[in-house]
Amino acid sequence: MRKLENSELDRLNVDEFKQVEKTPICIVLDNVRSLNNIGSVFRTADAFLIEKIYLCGITATPPHKDIHKTALGATDSVAWEYRENTLELLEELKHVGYISLSVEQAENAVMLNDFEVDNNDKYALIFGNEVKGVSQDVVSNSDGVLEIPQYGTKHSLNISVSVGIVVWDLWAKLKG
Amino acid sequence: MRKLENSELDRLNVDEFKQVEKTPICIVLDNVRSLNNIGSVFRTADAFLIEKIYLCGITATPPHKDIHKTALGATDSVAWEYRENTLELLEELKHVGYISLSVEQAENAVMLNDFEVDNNDKYALIFGNEVKGVSQDVVSNSDGVLEIPQYGTKHSLNISVSVGIVVWDLWAKLKG
Repeated sequence: MRKLENSELDRLNVDEFKQVEKTPICIVLDNVRSLNNIGSVFRTADAFLIEKIYLCGITATPPHKDIHKTALGATDSVAWEYRENTLELLEELKHVGYISLSVEQAENAVMLNDFEVDNNDKYALIFGNEVKGVSQDVVSNSDGVLEIPQYGTKHSLNISVSVGIVVWDLWAKLKG
Repeated sequence: MRKLENSELDRLNVDEFKQVEKTPICIVLDNVRSLNNIGSVFRTADAFLIEKIYLCGITATPPHKDIHKTALGATDSVAWEYRENTLELLEELKHVGYISLSVEQAENAVMLNDFEVDNNDKYALIFGNEVKGVSQDVVSNSDGVLEIPQYGTKHSLNISVSVGIVVWDLWAKLKG
């Protein structure tokens, strides 16, 4: 089981990335504070060919050295846009056919493992602030809430980990 | 879709966590450098009731303020142990019935989405250094290699994100 060299992985270059068909998912970061988390989300979005990342509210934008530390160049490949107002973005995305899903712990949330995808749909996944989560008004105006079931002592997962889990889960279901 | 208060989440306390039946998975960190990543792995392990984390080689151990920043107390709930030598640990874990799976990009790797779990098995998941990955000798002595398929420009995901994705995937399959 010889490990592969980076050169054997046959990854895309940035131009090829821009051209290739994307996974019908965009990621909305609602007031995410940590630059480390933002960079890591770019790297995950690159791996799974996510359409676009929307950086909303206080969420910082590239270029920034602390985003670069974890994004490692994925800010060059993945499309992104800054929006001041998450609610306005949500309305726009719904208008162009995205199903908006806040990732939160809320009444009537669907557990991620129970969530079924439809290959005709496209999804906007919303992740919130490290302490406050997704704003209540954004949750209330989403088409649904996805919850990552958690069984331990802590209340929530790290945001970049949550993005990885939800994007992987939907990607695998869309592909499977 | 009212957001739930932390008090409504009905999480375990540390004593309850120690008693509750665990997911038959342990995590092995082979020479992980980033304290931020180590802490985040503890938090993920707490959420999915992982049996134990083995911190190997240069991987730092709690208590450490930079581990605490991302673990946020999960070092009190999740069992852990330091081991100098990952290969020796691997032999021990195999001896007590764990199936050892290195998470890497290697020849004959099984793609994570194709991997099927067996509810009679227990798994040791091995994650490696941020730059070098899992050591070749550890990969060579594993029972198998799991690869997270990636389609973008970058060669790998952040380690704490990889741990989240693989643990979630196996947890959901074991439960499903």
